Amino acid sequence: MKKIAVLLSGCGVFDGSEIYETVITLLAIERNGASYQCFAPDKEQLHVIDHNAQKPTDESRNVLIEAARLARGNVKPLNALNVAEFDALIIPGGFGAAKNFSDFAVNGADAVADEQVVTFCQAFAAAKKPAGYMCIAPSLLPFVYGHGIELTIGNDSDTAEALEQMGAKHIACSVDEIVVDEKHRVVTTPAYMLAGSLSEAASGIDKLVAKVVALTDHA
Amino acid sequence: MKKIAVLLSGCGVFDGSEIYETVITLLAIERNGASYQCFAPDKEQLHVIDHNAQKPTDESRNVLIEAARLARGNVKPLNALNVAEFDALIIPGGFGAAKNFSDFAVNGADAVADEQVVTFCQAFAAAKKPAGYMCIAPSLLPFVYGHGIELTIGNDSDTAEALEQMGAKHIACSVDEIVVDEKHRVVTTPAYMLAGSLSEAASGIDKLVAKVVALTDHA
Repeated sequence: MKKIAVLLSGCGVFDGSEIYETVITLLAIERNGASYQCFAPDKEQLHVIDHNAQKPTDESRNVLIEAARLARGNVKPLNALNVAEFDALIIPGGFGAAKNFSDFAVNGADAVADEQVVTFCQAFAAAKKPAGYMCIAPSLLPFVYGHGIELTIGNDSDTAEALEQMGAKHIACSVDEIVVDEKHRVVTTPAYMLAGSLSEAASGIDKLVAKVVALTDHA
Repeated sequence: MKKIAVLLSGCGVFDGSEIYETVITLLAIERNGASYQCFAPDKEQLHVIDHNAQKPTDESRNVLIEAARLARGNVKPLNALNVAEFDALIIPGGFGAAKNFSDFAVNGADAVADEQVVTFCQAFAAAKKPAGYMCIAPSLLPFVYGHGIELTIGNDSDTAEALEQMGAKHIACSVDEIVVDEKHRVVTTPAYMLAGSLSEAASGIDKLVAKVVALTDHA
């Protein structure tokens, strides 16, 4: 059975992993006959957002502990990765992917990435294992793959321009489609950068997961 | 379009709503051609559990605010309910359903329920609108419907016995099936009381949602 590492950035759209995207991803992994293990960095979140008032709070929360909330307790720290045990990597979106993996949500094209997160993702790139990044998580791709990586974050021109400044090639994409960088074996989809509903998000995420799993057969 | 009220108890299996059950439920509601609105009580959680260490913390968190995390910010307090706007009620499980709706997780058959939560649920019962309760959420049913309500929480004999002491009629049920109390128009399924995977949980939840939506056509 193929085994997919899933990298989480917390629990909640405004400060962590987008919950709907994550659950749709995990269900799709199972339905493609593969298994998964969740990982998350053991560090403080950049923000804790009150999702009802949609305002920052003065709390602090740990990314790994909150990711465990999303993964029913089954999450490992980044340094527990043995990349040889895995066939692919998938990263759901949510602002946490642009707040806790890098500071792209705050600094755009001038973003600095978390070194341990980049090392984690580069382990899959170096082993030529396929990867899927959705929603705003592709903002991490220039740090992992360098210049020329092809990706989508949907059609938001400001975000696309920032990613182009970082060396990526942005390709506009609808919510129900995927962009595949065949050379780097990287699949992206807009998910909640564009989705207006769970089923819209699922339409692209299901394709992303199926493509990533399929790519594990063609190393 | 049929509209379903979804009652949440926080965000996270050990102290709030079970996240996977909730997302599978919301997706199934959409795929059955209906829409949803999430609600939650505006009160402090009974516990805040570190889902990584699986131990209580000394934090306090608010059920409504954490439920908003699970619902992408779109959650209303219980007193915002106008039952005439809704066709049915669905309640996902997670320990929050037995910690924040009543104290069944702590006190079993001697549990006391939150009065505002019971009033919310009884509005649907009084209007003869169908309801679906999954996982441990059926522990609320004796407070809402009184003696004789037929339900399942799977096959755990201690939990089933406590519910029988509270006046319920427990019917053993596998994870991929539902129990329907036709008289009270209440559907239950074990979900993560028995599920070993997301797809197992989905097998019963998808049936529960389809049945609840179907029952809205036969008032």
